[in-house]
Amino acid sequence: MSERVEVIDVTLRDGLQNEPKPVSAEQKLALVEKLVCAGVTRIQVTSFVHPQLVPQMADAETVASALGRFSDVRFSALVPNRKGYERAVAAGLKHLEFVMAASDTFNRRNINCSIERSLEMLGELSRTAERDGVDLRIGLATSFHCPFEGRIPLHALVSLVRAVRERARWPVVLADTDGMAFPDQVKNAVAAIGDELNVKPGEMVLHFHDTYGRGLANTLAGLDGGVRAFDAATGGLGGCPFCPGASGNLATEDLVAFLDGMGYQTGIDLDKLLEAAESANRFSSRPYQAHLLRARRPTALGGKEVCVQAPASV
Amino acid sequence: MSERVEVIDVTLRDGLQNEPKPVSAEQKLALVEKLVCAGVTRIQVTSFVHPQLVPQMADAETVASALGRFSDVRFSALVPNRKGYERAVAAGLKHLEFVMAASDTFNRRNINCSIERSLEMLGELSRTAERDGVDLRIGLATSFHCPFEGRIPLHALVSLVRAVRERARWPVVLADTDGMAFPDQVKNAVAAIGDELNVKPGEMVLHFHDTYGRGLANTLAGLDGGVRAFDAATGGLGGCPFCPGASGNLATEDLVAFLDGMGYQTGIDLDKLLEAAESANRFSSRPYQAHLLRARRPTALGGKEVCVQAPASV
Repeated sequence: MSERVEVIDVTLRDGLQNEPKPVSAEQKLALVEKLVCAGVTRIQVTSFVHPQLVPQMADAETVASALGRFSDVRFSALVPNRKGYERAVAAGLKHLEFVMAASDTFNRRNINCSIERSLEMLGELSRTAERDGVDLRIGLATSFHCPFEGRIPLHALVSLVRAVRERARWPVVLADTDGMAFPDQVKNAVAAIGDELNVKPGEMVLHFHDTYGRGLANTLAGLDGGVRAFDAATGGLGGCPFCPGASGNLATEDLVAFLDGMGYQTGIDLDKLLEAAESANRFSSRPYQAHLLRARRPTALGGKEVCVQAPASV
Repeated sequence: MSERVEVIDVTLRDGLQNEPKPVSAEQKLALVEKLVCAGVTRIQVTSFVHPQLVPQMADAETVASALGRFSDVRFSALVPNRKGYERAVAAGLKHLEFVMAASDTFNRRNINCSIERSLEMLGELSRTAERDGVDLRIGLATSFHCPFEGRIPLHALVSLVRAVRERARWPVVLADTDGMAFPDQVKNAVAAIGDELNVKPGEMVLHFHDTYGRGLANTLAGLDGGVRAFDAATGGLGGCPFCPGASGNLATEDLVAFLDGMGYQTGIDLDKLLEAAESANRFSSRPYQAHLLRARRPTALGGKEVCVQAPASV
């Protein structure tokens, strides 16, 4: 087994969007450099959203315009509407993520419109993107669970994906925004979307948060279902602002170590990725909440070197 | 699906054995009380090891002798040799775990003897236990990976389980001591032990650490293979002293929430279990490293209440 799995790093978008500590465009680009150096070839770098609503993304144009120096990397940005789309395209980006939610309440709170309106926008933007030669992917927040509405029924998710596919031919991202998905839901969703809508696992991306420690269990369910593309954020940065507790994205370093150990190819050098994770962790206002850095480089987090003794372990 | 899964809490043994902060017998018994109140019916309370080597377990007799007040709970203790066995039985315990390792280097460092010698001891203790009406379970540390020897080949694990089963008819515990197991290894191990040795999944227990965030992914692999008994420690306490970084057991609260969400019955009340986790966390000299308490009760860990705002999440 040496199958390829795509790892899409979203540190600079989902990881930072709710981070109160300001991170400069220069610092963001230094992280891009480390990620590229580690072999990451798909990076979501920013969101084109209202700068007053998300001040951390106010430098979207500055960041996007500095990416020309990196070759062979597919950079993307998130856009919630036409205005964001137009800014992103003007800034030279060719890969965008249109975001909406599977929960109407969440969509209203997050994007300030109904699911129906988001679908209309998607239809319009999809035609524009075809014309512009821009690739969209469609991010479906709260695909499995919503902090307001609770568990999303499978049929509701399948209906939404059907409506999305009627408007856009690009991959859909099933995002577990609040980290409350369970592997059986992931398995059933991937199977149902495949069976009922003929969307192949290769046309899906999974995006997990590790809020409840289920990030890798859900990844396993996705892999078993044939999905081969996953979002993650170095350092486990990020989280959903509507959800209680400190809740980070699944950490890119934990994901890559997991895939490596099971024989998948990611093209990413784990040691170099840990350097990126160490940098990203300095952007965060909370302690490191992922795993690999703590286990492999405790001193990088102010921890002690390994002490080796004590009997009767199991 | 409302199948029963046994959750065996090992906070007071594996969770505490390497904890430098002293925890009194009274505090330990208060945690037992909370666990029992939450509905936990299988609890590993201590180790009968040399008190100078593991000072935290020096009160093994005191703790064991106070358990009579709890009914309908199966209390167990870990023993590495005959001396430990005799102390445990004298203290009134009827369920013991004999511990050895799948890696000879680890066995020598941990138990101070070869695997061969451990197997001889097991043979002798097994006969004694049959005579005494004591149940043993056989804990196999480093079943998947050893911090000294690296990955344990599947055939080596299967050979060891064969040798164990020739000497003892009780369940075997496959323990991922350093948290380095991967789900494919777990799946293959459970299948091979079943197929080649005719050991049913019901005669196995899985014991995971969450060092690399793989605890629940490995649990999923075990569940898929038919295993229905898992060890865990509240608060994610514990870890392997030979392994780098802060490495805790899979947290009981994370495990129970995971099982609940997938429709398994554990008989455990999650809210009450969180109270136990909160107490256990106070025993620890390091910050909380598991998930559920942080997500559900951030204030219990000195965190802030939820802040609710910010758009364009996914």
